[in-house]
Parts: sequence; structure tokens; C-alpha cells
Amino acid sequence: MTTPPAGARSPFARVAVVGCGLVGGSLALAAARTPGVAEVVVTDVDPDTLTRAAARGIGHRREPDPAAAVRGADLVVLATPVAVTSSVFQKLESELPPGVVVTDVGSVKANLLREVEALSRPRAGAEGEREGGQEAIVVPSWRFIGGHPMAGSERSGVDAADGTLFQGATWVLTPTPRSDPAAFEALSAFLRALGARVLAVEPELHDQLVAVASHLPQVLASTLMDEAAEAARRSGEAVLAVAAGGFRDATRVAGSDPELWVGILRENRDAVLTAIDGFLARLRALRTAVDTGTWDEVHALLDRARTAQRQLPTKYRVGRLVDLVIPVEDHPGVLSEVTTALGEAGVNIEDLAMRHATELERGALLVAVDGEDAAHRAQRVLARRGFASHVEPR
Amino acid sequence: MTTPPAGARSPFARVAVVGCGLVGGSLALAAARTPGVAEVVVTDVDPDTLTRAAARGIGHRREPDPAAAVRGADLVVLATPVAVTSSVFQKLESELPPGVVVTDVGSVKANLLREVEALSRPRAGAEGEREGGQEAIVVPSWRFIGGHPMAGSERSGVDAADGTLFQGATWVLTPTPRSDPAAFEALSAFLRALGARVLAVEPELHDQLVAVASHLPQVLASTLMDEAAEAARRSGEAVLAVAAGGFRDATRVAGSDPELWVGILRENRDAVLTAIDGFLARLRALRTAVDTGTWDEVHALLDRARTAQRQLPTKYRVGRLVDLVIPVEDHPGVLSEVTTALGEAGVNIEDLAMRHATELERGALLVAVDGEDAAHRAQRVLARRGFASHVEPR
Repeated sequence: MTTPPAGARSPFARVAVVGCGLVGGSLALAAARTPGVAEVVVTDVDPDTLTRAAARGIGHRREPDPAAAVRGADLVVLATPVAVTSSVFQKLESELPPGVVVTDVGSVKANLLREVEALSRPRAGAEGEREGGQEAIVVPSWRFIGGHPMAGSERSGVDAADGTLFQGATWVLTPTPRSDPAAFEALSAFLRALGARVLAVEPELHDQLVAVASHLPQVLASTLMDEAAEAARRSGEAVLAVAAGGFRDATRVAGSDPELWVGILRENRDAVLTAIDGFLARLRALRTAVDTGTWDEVHALLDRARTAQRQLPTKYRVGRLVDLVIPVEDHPGVLSEVTTALGEAGVNIEDLAMRHATELERGALLVAVDGEDAAHRAQRVLARRGFASHVEPR
Repeated sequence: MTTPPAGARSPFARVAVVGCGLVGGSLALAAARTPGVAEVVVTDVDPDTLTRAAARGIGHRREPDPAAAVRGADLVVLATPVAVTSSVFQKLESELPPGVVVTDVGSVKANLLREVEALSRPRAGAEGEREGGQEAIVVPSWRFIGGHPMAGSERSGVDAADGTLFQGATWVLTPTPRSDPAAFEALSAFLRALGARVLAVEPELHDQLVAVASHLPQVLASTLMDEAAEAARRSGEAVLAVAAGGFRDATRVAGSDPELWVGILRENRDAVLTAIDGFLARLRALRTAVDTGTWDEVHALLDRARTAQRQLPTKYRVGRLVDLVIPVEDHPGVLSEVTTALGEAGVNIEDLAMRHATELERGALLVAVDGEDAAHRAQRVLARRGFASHVEPR
């Protein structure tokens, strides 16, 4: 368990959380105890959920009307099921305060960001906004950054909310070339103040990665559980009695909410199909090796898997921070290019600041990373993309 | 965690454990603290393992020579890797004391039991046993009962040994029509005294069940880990950074020993192939449903899996014991028939006793089970096999 960095403050005073399930409720609990946050308002379509949130002291205010909930907010977090986030945002968009930062927590990112960013362009106002026969032009001033906390539970709902859920967890942000750098900087500071680690990944790459690391494991766990239950029906209950710890681990996420997961698989269909196909091919190859008694091949796979499993990153423990200084042109898109290059190298953003040097139209991005090794990995991927950088110890 | 039943005693005073890895070491630790056990001797082919066992106080004696280790034993436990157990037994057989009970802890049973039982028939003695030109006839008096504790760890070796490993765990015994009832009774009393629950399953059914509940999950975990590691090589390290708790659970057993698992998959090849094929068919069907957008079918699978996952038996907690009285003919095979019928119904044997009534050549088997529900399930499967039974509260 990690505690937020000492002195970390939220740049947002007023936080509105739309959707008060496991993630929204946990976020509201965590935000309320973060220095710099003055008010957390939660809203949910289900009145019963808000009653239960009140009973658990979640949010300074519970507000059934989403428009009222986001009024005056500095940060709006859409913590709704991935299948409805886009339509929730579209309904809420006209109510958003000027300049507000908006983020979401959905497991799939590319579709949503396409839909949201299509709304960010200046456009003709609605019927009621016509003035004197002239169409009003709406210039949206909200700034959306997609997000996805890599933390969860097979439990769901407000009753499972836990204010420590995100401590030490990786929180992926998916900036695009159209993302506002200041909004990204503020949001990542907020998440770090909650105790999370920020990793920036391009939306399409994010969707491919979670297809392998999250959606495929869900599909496998449910399929295995279904197969074992069928075996239990065929041959007596004994199959469940012989299910030891390994089986329980392998099927734990099969206890997750089917509704939620249909939404996720639907939203990320292409990447999920690719991940399933990759897995099927590998499993068929292993099956053939077992069938033909090619035991050295079986051994090689088991051995590679053991090595990889042992190298899985262990619990978050920040070592000595190192600043990477990256001189950049001050143009849109450079932030997402630099930060997602770091993400590709698996390097978390432990801190982020921008130095502007307006005379020269050239500034620098300062990114704190966890130790020299991470800094060097980051430098290599940045160099491949044409960014020079140097390391400054803090 | 369950403690052994109060007053439970081991019917074996001298226990020899052959092979001092995770299971053998844990068993030696557990046996040494069980009332009725006077001496635990451990042996291992690896002298270094015995040195480490000594350092941890495992076994009253460490004995490098297996023949010396089993001398005078009442119970010999073969805790060797499944791939070598049969040959270890064959080498040791001539050294076994008369009447000794022998068991093993391997994950695969049918092959081993066929090989062991082939040795149990009276046969011509070896060359050196010829007497006066006449071949001596060897009549083996050891009594072998196959066993498989459903407890383990992705850790292995004597250093991971844990005297509480089997408390509350299911310990499968695989009696056959040729098993000696008294040996079965004594061995199951010993295991209960260690705190384990005994479940009797036919060897072939056992192998099918563990193929689904243990070997398939291992194959899936290793294949998933290998696939994810490949994705990490292709697209940067980020895939591992986005791996949340669900991925860790799904791949935990991928950390297991490849050598050991090649042995298991090899020994249980046919059942493993059948389990993989069942899984492949189910996964392909799910893939098609995702591909064609047949979301109600996807939902149905996820929902069935959730229901089954929630019904997985939880931690062992014995309620009110109920005695099932089953009048039986006193002929070989009846014990395995009755006890494995209970196993098929998922009913553990909490206690077992035989009432002999020699005048009538008819006795009764008393099996204590956990509560009325289990007793009624047991009665139904027994009735299908032609056994009458009645319930006696204790």
C-alpha cells in the first residue's frame, strides 16, 4: 500500500462524480480526503444508490440531478458503465461549466474519445440558441482527457466502494494530439494526490493492451468456469470438490457483473477478437505439442511463462525520482506524443510540469520518473521519435 | 482454517515420507504433531534437500537411504513427482515391511494404480530367492491406496513446506475394487487427524476431474502469460503495467515448476487433451458470439459462469455429522463402490467405520457425512447403485 506523496494537493477544489458504483464511490471517498479538495458531489441515476452512498458518507453532497451535480465543478469524473458513458456525456455537455476538466474511468477508450472529440469542435448552437435570426456558434471550453484506473474488484456497486482502491494502482490516461496539456497536467497531479501512478498510453494502444491483459483473462475465466460447471453436471459434484486454490484464482473474475462485461466486450470488440485469436492459436499449438508428445516444446512454453510471471511488476514503491528534461516545440499534440512514448516503455509519470519559453516559442517538458533505469528506457523511446532529452537528478 | 477433530489420533505410529518437497515436507511437519505418531522419517534423493529439511526440523530423522527410511514403517507416503512415483515404488517394493500401508500424493492416478496393482499379485520371486531349485512365490503384503491432496502452492521445494497446508483441504483417495478396506479406513483416519477432508473418487474419474479443475487451469494460465509476454515484446512494456489484479490472479499458477508440470501433463495426456478440446470448443463458440454481436449469448455464458463461481464450495466448516448406515456384502470391492459413489456426489467422508457380522457374512459400513443434505445426496447415488442405507443422527 502506498500513501500519496507528502504535500501532494489536488489542483481541483470541486469534484463531481457521475455514477456512484465501485469506481465512482471509491474515487469520491479518496477525493474527499485529498488536500485541496473542498467539495465532492456525487450523482447517480439510481436514487437507491445515492441513499446508500449517503449512509456510507460518500460525497459531501448527493445530487440526483446530474446538471446540478456538475454546476461549479472544476473536475467532472464520468464513472458510468462504458456502454453509456458517451451518451451520458452528450446529454451533460451543455451543462458543463466553462473550462472544466472532464475525465472518465471506462475500460475502453478509442471509440469514446472519437465521439467526445467530435463534440469539441466549434459548432452551430441548438435551436434555442438562435439570436436575431443568426445561428449562435458554440465553442466548447471543457477539456476531456480519457482515463482508466487499473484497479477493481469482482465486487461491484457502491457498497464495495473503498477509498484506498487506487493507492499504488496504475491510472492510465489516454491523451490525444487534441488534448489540452494544462488539463492533462492538472488531472495527473490530481490522480497522484490520490496515490495512483499515471501512465500515458495512446487510446488505440490502450484498447489493444487491455484486450490482452484484462478482457481476455475475463473471457478465459468465464469460459473455464462454465466448462467446469458443465463437467460437474455431467460427472457429479466432485469436480468442484477437487478444485483447489489454482482453480479459484483462475476463475475469480468470473464472479464479475455480466452486464458490465457485455458492454466492455461490445465496445472493444475488434481488439478482443484479435486477443482471443492470438490465444486460440497459442493454445492449439500447445495442444498439438501435448498430443504429439513434443515435451520439450511444452516445457519451453511453461518455462517462458514462469519467467514472465516472475517479472510482473510488483507493488508500487517509488524509489529515487529523476527528472527527464525534454525540450519541445510548443504545439498541440507534443504532450501526447511524449507522454505516450513513455507509456509504451512502461514508464510511469511520477510528476509532470511544463516550462514555457514564449519568446522562442519553445519550452520544455519536465517528467519525473522512477529511477535511472526508467529514465534511460524513456530516453531510448523518445530518441526514436526524434526527441532529445537529458536527465536531471532532483 | 480448520483444526483436526478433537481426539483424532493417527492409527500409524511410524510414518516414512519418501520425497521431501513442498507436499512431503508439509506432510512430515503435520504428521509429527499428530497424536499417535511416534516417529516421522523423511528421505530424498537430494542430500541438500535433507540438509535443508534438518535445518527446518522436518522429520524426527532424515535418512538418505530409502530402504532404511521405510524400515519398520506403518505408513509409507510417496511424495515424489508424479513422473517417477511408479519407478520409485518398484525399486522400494521389496524393502517394504509386511502389512505396511502405502500411499502417494500424485496429481494423476489411473496409470500409477494399474502399475502398482499389477505388482500386488502373488508372483515368482527374483533370482536370488530361488530355494533348492524351486522358485519362491512372493505374496506382497503391502497395501496401496492412491491419494492426492488438493492443496498446493505455486512455490515448491522443502523451503515452502508448511505444516498447516492440508488443514481444511480435500484429500482425494482413489480406492479400487482391489483396495484393502482396513487400509483405506486407517489411511482416511490418519488424513482426518491431519485436518484434511477425505473424498473417495475412482482413479479414472479423478484423472478426468483434475484435468478440468487443475491441469486445464495451469495450461490456460501459462498460455495467457506467454501470450501477454509476447504482446509486451511487440508493443512495449505497457501491457504489463496495465495488468491489474484480475490478470495476476489468472496467471498466478504460471509461476509453477515446468518440470513438474510436464510430468503431470504427460501422465494425464488423454484427459488433458479432452479438457483442452472442451475448452477450445467453448471459447470458439464465445468468439463467434462476440464476432456476430450475439450479445444475449455472451451474456448467458457470463451469467452462468458467475452463478457457478459463486457456488464454489467455501472454506471447510463441518456442521452436524450424520451417520449413514449402509448394509453391505462382505466382498472385495464393495468399499470402493460405496465410497466413490459418495465422491461422485461431492460428499466427503468425515468418518468411516466397518461393522463386521461374520455369521451372516454381511456387515455394514458406517460413513459420517456433513449434515442431512449431504446424507440425502449420498443416499440417492447409493440407491442408484443398488445400496439401501439409512441415516442415524450421532
